[in-house]
Amino acid sequence: MANDKKVEQITDMEVDFAQWFTDVCRKAELIDYSSIKGVFIYRPYGYAIWENMQKILDAEFKKCGVENVYMPLLIPESLLQREKDHVEGFAPECAWVTVGGSETLEERYCVRPTSETLFCEHFHNIIHSHRDLPKCYNQWCSVLRWEKSSRPFLRHREFLWQEGHTMHATAEEAEAYTQRMLNVYADFCENVLAMPVTRGRKTDKEKFNGAEATYAIECMMHDRKALQAGTSHYFGDGFARAFDITFTDKNNQRVNPFQTSWGVSTRLIGGIIMTHGDNNGLVLPPKVAPTQLIVVPVAAHKPGVAEKAQELCDRLNAAGYRAKIDLSDNSMGWKCAEYEMKGVPVRVEMGPRDMANNSCVMVRRDNGEKTVVSLDELEQKAGELLEAVHNGLFEKAKRNLEEHTYVAHTLDEAKELQEKNGGFIKTMWCGELDCELQMKEKAGMSSRCIPFNQEHLDDVCPVCGKPAKCEVYWGVAY
Amino acid sequence: MANDKKVEQITDMEVDFAQWFTDVCRKAELIDYSSIKGVFIYRPYGYAIWENMQKILDAEFKKCGVENVYMPLLIPESLLQREKDHVEGFAPECAWVTVGGSETLEERYCVRPTSETLFCEHFHNIIHSHRDLPKCYNQWCSVLRWEKSSRPFLRHREFLWQEGHTMHATAEEAEAYTQRMLNVYADFCENVLAMPVTRGRKTDKEKFNGAEATYAIECMMHDRKALQAGTSHYFGDGFARAFDITFTDKNNQRVNPFQTSWGVSTRLIGGIIMTHGDNNGLVLPPKVAPTQLIVVPVAAHKPGVAEKAQELCDRLNAAGYRAKIDLSDNSMGWKCAEYEMKGVPVRVEMGPRDMANNSCVMVRRDNGEKTVVSLDELEQKAGELLEAVHNGLFEKAKRNLEEHTYVAHTLDEAKELQEKNGGFIKTMWCGELDCELQMKEKAGMSSRCIPFNQEHLDDVCPVCGKPAKCEVYWGVAY
Repeated sequence: MANDKKVEQITDMEVDFAQWFTDVCRKAELIDYSSIKGVFIYRPYGYAIWENMQKILDAEFKKCGVENVYMPLLIPESLLQREKDHVEGFAPECAWVTVGGSETLEERYCVRPTSETLFCEHFHNIIHSHRDLPKCYNQWCSVLRWEKSSRPFLRHREFLWQEGHTMHATAEEAEAYTQRMLNVYADFCENVLAMPVTRGRKTDKEKFNGAEATYAIECMMHDRKALQAGTSHYFGDGFARAFDITFTDKNNQRVNPFQTSWGVSTRLIGGIIMTHGDNNGLVLPPKVAPTQLIVVPVAAHKPGVAEKAQELCDRLNAAGYRAKIDLSDNSMGWKCAEYEMKGVPVRVEMGPRDMANNSCVMVRRDNGEKTVVSLDELEQKAGELLEAVHNGLFEKAKRNLEEHTYVAHTLDEAKELQEKNGGFIKTMWCGELDCELQMKEKAGMSSRCIPFNQEHLDDVCPVCGKPAKCEVYWGVAY
Repeated sequence: MANDKKVEQITDMEVDFAQWFTDVCRKAELIDYSSIKGVFIYRPYGYAIWENMQKILDAEFKKCGVENVYMPLLIPESLLQREKDHVEGFAPECAWVTVGGSETLEERYCVRPTSETLFCEHFHNIIHSHRDLPKCYNQWCSVLRWEKSSRPFLRHREFLWQEGHTMHATAEEAEAYTQRMLNVYADFCENVLAMPVTRGRKTDKEKFNGAEATYAIECMMHDRKALQAGTSHYFGDGFARAFDITFTDKNNQRVNPFQTSWGVSTRLIGGIIMTHGDNNGLVLPPKVAPTQLIVVPVAAHKPGVAEKAQELCDRLNAAGYRAKIDLSDNSMGWKCAEYEMKGVPVRVEMGPRDMANNSCVMVRRDNGEKTVVSLDELEQKAGELLEAVHNGLFEKAKRNLEEHTYVAHTLDEAKELQEKNGGFIKTMWCGELDCELQMKEKAGMSSRCIPFNQEHLDDVCPVCGKPAKCEVYWGVAY
């Protein structure tokens, strides 16, 4: 019977972090496997998180003058090859359509791994005058990258994302826009997802294929590995030249425009899980939680309790919160465990005693704290508690980030710190690829970013001892 | 200079309806061609119409208990083949991925032409008990159908749509849900898109591959051709058996659930164009128009006019309308023609005289009617005029539908009516495929639907003379 239903167990993260992660993804019903290796099904609860992210991000994009479009799924091979660096980066991961209907195609088509080439072909057709600029386009879609290994949310062969593509009259404007969009992502991560980020520029080795500069936000997960949460690329006029995109400027000269692209994906959901989750399951940041408050009646068979609980739920929804009620005959214990596992930020309990006191009990998911709330203040207190959960999650994640960011002055020290503690290791760097490769080979870390907030930690590169040019964050990345 | 800019000419629909349609699609910047035949680019103005449709439809779906998901893009060939009728229908139109990365795949994957098979595989994994039912899922995505011919919005090799897939405990519930969703579409077309519809059931010949019954809404275009605007399918337990989907019912028996699917696509945008458009271009139904009101200052160089016009625009947006202002130095004539071409439902003019009178002039796109509106009533009158445009469009389209729906009693009469007038020809029908094929061969018409509102027109089938079973609408369809 229903009352015997058990909430499925989740592996403790200290025992096996990877298994804990997979357990949460599956048992909170965020995702499921499909019959194709590396391709996943986004289930309603997982997809609803993405929809909430979309709504908020899309509104932010619009403030930056962005218009949504939809470009084709397929890219002719000849089109993909127009920009040399770009095709070299993506060709190994392309899935190819070679047959249409019953006929073998004359040219094969790649299922988009990203759409710079398609946007450039379109920009070539629609940009003629400085009056046509800037063009700030975005699309929400899925992309395919035929990778060998996969993990839910973190690495899919097919994943959902948004890709913004813009064209500007000057290099300065394009460069500024690249950074502006990175800041949109950074603010979104911090203010909406409660994930503190480090903002910076990628090294040449780590930048996007075909870009002049790639900027990224890097987050730290529970296991102290790094997650690249969003990127924004500045292309100069490289693609514009390759695709013959020109416009007549104010001096009546034909010149090339300057380009950016930027994207975040459902990988952010993986970031949320590994930043906020615990051994009881998911912990969702309130602003994107599909259900922000779950109302659970206590002793629901007692007269009036179910009705009163329903009234609370209705009031919360009317006030603009996403609230649900569980009137099923499952046990109180089951319900508490279930909604903890699902990461609902606040549980609202309503029983006979609460009714008598004109109050209810609100329980925070992040720290278990209980608050008796007068029903006269229901809506206001709900808002305050959701805000408190958000802040609690952010502060906790920030502590994790700060406590596990270390300074190293030698390669050995960097290696030892990483092996012992994980986290971000900050060092100076001479700027040479060889030293970056040695850090990877000997200390197992890739460069995460050259942070915008540069510190002076030392005078020399920890690898070669030559004069340092900048500070770099290193880490083991997802 | 800007003032010399011309609004591009559109071919008159009486001269060449197909060219008129293509001109509107291109020149109103709804769509563009890509480098792959039959694959189109949805431009910002066209995509924004789709986004407005999505918002409204998605809210209606939610009222029917629907949850959104995202299923994979690719279908393994073996999975597509699990339901015989289904694969026979779609295999000729499939595009196949045969290479992933640098390797030829062991099994080829079809880019989804529709996702019944993927949903069924997932349902097999997640449906176990009657407590798991109903499952009402929907996804917004693109699909690929490798067809020979193409036209903007009406027939793309890749198009955007939504596909709902549901599973129910009983046949009755599933059948009722199928019709419920058809009514959601019908109400949407009539109340939101101002497109009157005929609701009915498809003949066996015209039904969806693998369905037991297909219901459809049929609209009539300006050129009196029929457009199938939405379909809803009842599958019985056919797919459930093929995919071994079972659940334990309340009597503890393992049984198969009953299934539906239903969809509308960006073809609806084609329907809007061909229902409401005229020789000046697009005419958009206000509820989905990206811009509902365009504010145009008259003699904008005169002191205070531009500011006053901006104030109007701000007030309209604050009241929840989608309003824009054109402060460019293009001429008044150009602006009027431009926003007529773009189909903006209401133009708001504000000049020095209007300022002096504390009024503005509102011009309806559908009939050119001008109304002097006191600024004290700006918001209210804007709403009334948008409503009037909606009603005007609906009534005009309804007249077109009613005036071009004819009764025929013989095949010759049906053929003559169609050749002379176009439109829907109503006849009785014996129910035999052979008579349906003869109507196609001899009168050039396919059966559009067996309308829910059945009339008794005659006792016999107009083709074979045998006793009639039902009334059918026939037409030439897009």
